[in-house]
Amino acid sequence: MAVKVITIGEEILGANEAKARGNQKRLDQNGILAANIMSSPGSGKTSLILRTIRHFKAKLGIAVIEGDVASSIDAEKVNKLGVAVIQINTAGGCHLDANMIEQALDNLPLEKTDLLFIENVGNLICPVEFALGEHRRAVILSLPEGDDKPHKYPAMFADADVVLVNKIDLKPYLNFNLDAFIKKVTGMNPKVKIFPVSCQTGEGLDGWFSWLEAELKGKDTRK
Amino acid sequence: MAVKVITIGEEILGANEAKARGNQKRLDQNGILAANIMSSPGSGKTSLILRTIRHFKAKLGIAVIEGDVASSIDAEKVNKLGVAVIQINTAGGCHLDANMIEQALDNLPLEKTDLLFIENVGNLICPVEFALGEHRRAVILSLPEGDDKPHKYPAMFADADVVLVNKIDLKPYLNFNLDAFIKKVTGMNPKVKIFPVSCQTGEGLDGWFSWLEAELKGKDTRK
Repeated sequence: MAVKVITIGEEILGANEAKARGNQKRLDQNGILAANIMSSPGSGKTSLILRTIRHFKAKLGIAVIEGDVASSIDAEKVNKLGVAVIQINTAGGCHLDANMIEQALDNLPLEKTDLLFIENVGNLICPVEFALGEHRRAVILSLPEGDDKPHKYPAMFADADVVLVNKIDLKPYLNFNLDAFIKKVTGMNPKVKIFPVSCQTGEGLDGWFSWLEAELKGKDTRK
Repeated sequence: MAVKVITIGEEILGANEAKARGNQKRLDQNGILAANIMSSPGSGKTSLILRTIRHFKAKLGIAVIEGDVASSIDAEKVNKLGVAVIQINTAGGCHLDANMIEQALDNLPLEKTDLLFIENVGNLICPVEFALGEHRRAVILSLPEGDDKPHKYPAMFADADVVLVNKIDLKPYLNFNLDAFIKKVTGMNPKVKIFPVSCQTGEGLDGWFSWLEAELKGKDTRK
């Protein structure tokens, strides 16, 4: 039985990869930079997106795809900022896939968009396996989750372009060894950028904003 | 392709259910109460288990099965308390299944065990689908994750026998509406017991300990 599962899994992943390449081509044709935002539940994906929208809204066209098992709470928050947003409900599914993103792209104003955030389902394991067509992967780890998470969930951290260490405002009340965390993540992933931030107070977000701006400028296919 | 996946999924779940019933029978024959502990990464599953071991160690035989994608950090912590522990590494798998538990049971001193904790992989979505043979399901939600999680991850909360609201010591620093959380969870799951606790300070854990004792006493098949 185990072999059967693995075979089907590879078939699905292969089909997903092909669909993801199609999505990326479509994003490139529209000069859009897409970032896949991944983390555990409650680490601050939506808070980061809301902060980033507020910062860039005046100068960039932004769109958001919200992935959740259920509810449209996050999409409603984004919608209040006047930004185009599609909510995907996975109905039990633990990650987004490229097929879901293709359908979402059909319903977004791509020609007006420079920057697309895809907020994945809250899950530190499965989303990393499924390419969506994104150009960059951002992983959030919040301080209350503990500094041992890269040991326990290595794939997500090894694969990230950028890691945001969120809820840094809670540091006085927690035993979180930031140096040990950074050392472990950079050991697994030497090219990763790490930004300690607080989406509550705004602390440290300038580094993330500058990184995003550089990525936007560096993208050849920008319109 | 979607149909194919669903078919295989049902087949796997059916086989898992059968295996889980076998595990439960074996636990019952040994008079063991088994609790499946589930939550997001970093919500406090291991901390709860360590606190509970310290509380019951003198009067109960306790064993632990630790589930993680990678590492044996948690099993080492349990081992230091002199309790029998098996670490399962899922190597990318996002939940434990009954087959893994069967193998772990082969390696635990069942005849000396009264209470078995199964710490699932940190994931608020997938573990709920896979019966392990456990008698009770405990779900932890920590305050920093936010009070909206039952809306976004309903299955886990709808299915729990007990919900522990952990990290209550951080309440002064967070916007967490405990009343709204409790109302939402009990609305979905009227029989659930909810205990606000801090595995850091010990606050509120007496309720959890009393609940566990009552469950142990109430179990017909106790030796």
